[in-house]
Amino acid sequence: MAIRTAIAVANPNIAFIKYWGNRDHALRIPCNGSISLTLGGLETQTTVTFDENLTSDHVFIDDRSASASTSARVSQHLDRIRLIAGFKYCAKVESRSNFPVGAGIASSASAFAALTVAGTSAAGLSLQPIELSRIARLGSGSACRSIFGGFVEWHANETDEDSYAEVLAPSNHWDLQDLIVIVNQEHKGVGSTEGHALADTSPLQNARVADAPRRLKECRRAILDRDFPSLASITELDSNLMHAVMLTSTPSLMYWYPETLQIMNEVTRWRAEGYEVCYTIDAGPNVHCICTRKYADRIEKRLRRLPGVIQLLRASPGNQARVL
Amino acid sequence: MAIRTAIAVANPNIAFIKYWGNRDHALRIPCNGSISLTLGGLETQTTVTFDENLTSDHVFIDDRSASASTSARVSQHLDRIRLIAGFKYCAKVESRSNFPVGAGIASSASAFAALTVAGTSAAGLSLQPIELSRIARLGSGSACRSIFGGFVEWHANETDEDSYAEVLAPSNHWDLQDLIVIVNQEHKGVGSTEGHALADTSPLQNARVADAPRRLKECRRAILDRDFPSLASITELDSNLMHAVMLTSTPSLMYWYPETLQIMNEVTRWRAEGYEVCYTIDAGPNVHCICTRKYADRIEKRLRRLPGVIQLLRASPGNQARVL
Repeated sequence: MAIRTAIAVANPNIAFIKYWGNRDHALRIPCNGSISLTLGGLETQTTVTFDENLTSDHVFIDDRSASASTSARVSQHLDRIRLIAGFKYCAKVESRSNFPVGAGIASSASAFAALTVAGTSAAGLSLQPIELSRIARLGSGSACRSIFGGFVEWHANETDEDSYAEVLAPSNHWDLQDLIVIVNQEHKGVGSTEGHALADTSPLQNARVADAPRRLKECRRAILDRDFPSLASITELDSNLMHAVMLTSTPSLMYWYPETLQIMNEVTRWRAEGYEVCYTIDAGPNVHCICTRKYADRIEKRLRRLPGVIQLLRASPGNQARVL
Repeated sequence: MAIRTAIAVANPNIAFIKYWGNRDHALRIPCNGSISLTLGGLETQTTVTFDENLTSDHVFIDDRSASASTSARVSQHLDRIRLIAGFKYCAKVESRSNFPVGAGIASSASAFAALTVAGTSAAGLSLQPIELSRIARLGSGSACRSIFGGFVEWHANETDEDSYAEVLAPSNHWDLQDLIVIVNQEHKGVGSTEGHALADTSPLQNARVADAPRRLKECRRAILDRDFPSLASITELDSNLMHAVMLTSTPSLMYWYPETLQIMNEVTRWRAEGYEVCYTIDAGPNVHCICTRKYADRIEKRLRRLPGVIQLLRASPGNQARVL
């Protein structure tokens, strides 16, 4: 091998039942299972080029050299692939996302899913999706879900071997829309990796985790039955449970901005009016408004009228991570 | 007896370790103990006049006839006093507060403390403070703390007889100030009594209650040692724990407004700058900013500059409920 290259794309995902806290931090084995929708329309495209002439890895994000810590995390992930492939060539990695990164839109999920697919392909490996999901998980937990399209469940389990995601329902099962309201594009103060490590400092985390099987079951059923009211209730509850844990960690993690809260309150009000919409919020201030196709245009119009809305992105059920 | 009358005043209180959820709803025996500061400067003044010529109780709040539900709750409380006094005369009750009621400033605490003291006095009873605290508790849980001045602890316990408050430290022990930021004067959507009944629907309430002894101990120590940083940490954590439970109840109780969140975020930032201030929030959108006297003027100035601040009240450690 002299030079081997591959390009892959992956979508981020939004979790209805969220991942927060690890049973094993190094292996990113989560405390509880999670369920998400892969978000088509938003994507990270990553090119990995293994080149025997390179003496170190070079990582570029949106055409700029990545920070030392990001580069180190990418190199560590490439090491996992190099170990399986049985070589030690360094790589050039170029990654580009068409949405704001680090603002609670799971940019690390699409980034590590794309890196895993491009990296293993460039290394000449042909792995099963479940294998790709396991490897992606080691780079960024929720990336294991972005390997798959549609509605995806990550089985928490207890070991490196059995903690991976699988498809719950394909992308054409239910035409939900995600209207992502950007209220702030600043990079969040505390990243998810650090945040996960604080989960256990909250007196509430164990109770949140203990109740997760019930929520997973309810969410699975709501998705399979296309039961929007049930999906809305369990999704908002689960988002609130995660933020309850964040808020009561030491130090306290408060990801919401005043605008975040206003959108939460409005969405709740709109649903009471009969609109099929609910909110869910990741580790950042932006709000994902999940709605049925029928109401999406009307909700988008209402959202755009709210003060403090910097940008609005719209996503539909997306496909699996893939080599271009 | 023909006509017997008494006037009493009582202050509201703000809890550092909060009361949320009952072990026994009818008797208002709480799931966990609580610690508060009685708030001097804010007060409810109540006149109770037992009159053998009346054929029903008449309740006036701020010179207007009270609603049917409020009147019924007051009559029920008078029944407790009439039972002890051994007569059945009806009463005229006139109550007036110098602060907005029903907005998370414990108006029912000062109201039922004043009603208890005025009512028992008008009935010719001479009861010990602990007895008054128990009776007040039956009208409104946190009213049992407003019987006392200064720093007060309500022992949860398990029966009607042993669930009452006591002084932890007198009002001159520590000159803390409470800057109460009113961001909204509307009467809150879900009152505390209904809210307490929902606490058990949250998957987090048991964990919050189980951790309460640790918080009570830490809060007691911080007060006795006048250790502001510790008081600030445990107070904000406890407030966040209560709102975490509210937020994850079914239905979800969201008392915060966008302005509430902004003040929380600012207060946290100011403390990081070295200001001795912390926030705590009851079942409403308004924010209590607890601070030391040294920083109070500077914090008040900063608070008044924030958008959405409708009114700012200032309270100092207050005294026990008393007959005028």
